[in-house]
Amino acid sequence: MSTTTSRRGDSLLALRFEAGALRAIDQTALPWEERELILASAEDVAEAIRRLSIRGAPLIGVAAGYGVAIALARDPSLKSLELACEVLASARPTAVNLSRSVQRVHTASLRAHSDADRAAAALTEARLIETEEEAASDAIARHGARLLGGARRILTHCNTGALAAPGRGTALAVVAELADRGTLERALATESRPLLQGARLTVYELSKLDIEHELIVDSAAAGLLAKGAADAVIVGCDRVAANGDVANKVGTYGLALAASAADIPFVVAGPTSTIDYDCPAGAEIAIEERDPDEVRFAGGGIVTLPHTSCRNPAFDVTPAKLVTALVTERGVASPVDACTVAALRPG
Amino acid sequence: MSTTTSRRGDSLLALRFEAGALRAIDQTALPWEERELILASAEDVAEAIRRLSIRGAPLIGVAAGYGVAIALARDPSLKSLELACEVLASARPTAVNLSRSVQRVHTASLRAHSDADRAAAALTEARLIETEEEAASDAIARHGARLLGGARRILTHCNTGALAAPGRGTALAVVAELADRGTLERALATESRPLLQGARLTVYELSKLDIEHELIVDSAAAGLLAKGAADAVIVGCDRVAANGDVANKVGTYGLALAASAADIPFVVAGPTSTIDYDCPAGAEIAIEERDPDEVRFAGGGIVTLPHTSCRNPAFDVTPAKLVTALVTERGVASPVDACTVAALRPG
Repeated sequence: MSTTTSRRGDSLLALRFEAGALRAIDQTALPWEERELILASAEDVAEAIRRLSIRGAPLIGVAAGYGVAIALARDPSLKSLELACEVLASARPTAVNLSRSVQRVHTASLRAHSDADRAAAALTEARLIETEEEAASDAIARHGARLLGGARRILTHCNTGALAAPGRGTALAVVAELADRGTLERALATESRPLLQGARLTVYELSKLDIEHELIVDSAAAGLLAKGAADAVIVGCDRVAANGDVANKVGTYGLALAASAADIPFVVAGPTSTIDYDCPAGAEIAIEERDPDEVRFAGGGIVTLPHTSCRNPAFDVTPAKLVTALVTERGVASPVDACTVAALRPG
Repeated sequence: MSTTTSRRGDSLLALRFEAGALRAIDQTALPWEERELILASAEDVAEAIRRLSIRGAPLIGVAAGYGVAIALARDPSLKSLELACEVLASARPTAVNLSRSVQRVHTASLRAHSDADRAAAALTEARLIETEEEAASDAIARHGARLLGGARRILTHCNTGALAAPGRGTALAVVAELADRGTLERALATESRPLLQGARLTVYELSKLDIEHELIVDSAAAGLLAKGAADAVIVGCDRVAANGDVANKVGTYGLALAASAADIPFVVAGPTSTIDYDCPAGAEIAIEERDPDEVRFAGGGIVTLPHTSCRNPAFDVTPAKLVTALVTERGVASPVDACTVAALRPG
């Protein structure tokens, strides 16, 4: 492990494949410590995804692709391929990018004619996924900035920047693009309990980007939106159903209700790799329930009696009708419904 | 200071007047430490209110009444009276109970014919306020339990039990009454960031009352309500405007939106001392903005970069139209509007 993080120009590089291993910023240690993990096996990568050292729907997809390639570089057998795919695809259940990315690398590997070719094919596909997601991030930033050009103050939830996706991210890439264009006055970031991705990661990214921002507790958002504190809300997504329902970080649905009540746009940004056309509606999406200790602890300290029973859903589902627009690299769906979402389908 | 808390039978006694001083459980130390503060001056009481050692709209009203009496017991002059009233009434801005209680003790004191009588008159009025609020709590519990008799799982926010009001409290008194009647299956408690009154105090009270409960982060409420996790939401109130708009702990408005979307009752419980008939609508209510460090820290640890700019409104306003019923000691207003709220006016 090294203590220096990687940058590409001004932008943060959440992970990079180098010398046969995946090097990733340990996002559980941010913003206080910039620590790099070196992940040299599929199990290492899966574990980093499970414990949220690597997180964000597009980023875990990219990481999982490299995870398969790493396994095949060590042992190119079909058994090794299957084992790696299984451990990686099952690391987290909600974001579809993970299983889709593993599936892509799996398919590419099987096309290889020899064991030796198999590892190379996997790595080529993993790199292609990363390149595609990086290009998607740029396109999302442009489409989103066009859509929200008039918004001077934007509220965002969780972390959706360069730590969540290749390139500049998804929703936060739009915020950054608006800042670059000089029209953004300020971002409002929710802390995003239980794991505080807003307070820890979004504030960290906004600080590095020199974007004016204010942090709030999650439950302050609705009242502040009612008082006109933001002109729009933009969030990412972990899985979008074919009908446009959006599974995203817990708290997203409440923000959508509050934005609707305040009559301001509620925008979801993500690559089309996040759309699951095999999932008809949000009710079908598996919502991960995580360790109750994530609720019992915050900021390193316990916040309740030690054995308190907790529920800890990591995501919630926002009905398509509350989403003003879905911004992808292939364009913007608005209104968001089965028809407009189908129109974004590649090929 | 002693380390033993006071109980009356099974119920928790958040404060008691004894030997010329106000003894209060230091609520900032709960649930880990049961520490009693001995407050021997109006300034001591005001400071305990400011730092939330004593909190909850009805309870700070009662404490402030005793604060005036304590000042007059030491120095019964009119100057002492005015000083005590000023420091206590300005301790916190949002709950109307505070200024109203101070005003009542002030008026009662001025009716006294001598300095000696003045201190006695103040103490008598302070005790009367406490007795009235205790009776109000019992009546609220009965009215609320009748209203919500069919609710087996109830979500509540912040802390509204015996630590927030004399007797068994307000909203949590209704939950406790339903548990006593054997119809309640479980309470769902929000943690109530930033100061975690739900995680620290409500969980503590529910544990002592042996009521089944689960703790969630604030932003999980909307998604869980959409999935049918509760049959009703009940909260307290810090100030109710004449038109029925409710100022309460930040996050209340978001819960009201979520309850409305889930088509379940959203009930507000509080004594009529919390209704401000001089305030026409919620937009007129002063919303306290507290120290940004309350957002920057949680569970004793820092959750973001040290100098992050934060907004920290302690309350928000829920429009009357989102409130299914307002439960007071004088009965239930439902629907909640200027007309039904006026009908609750004493005298």
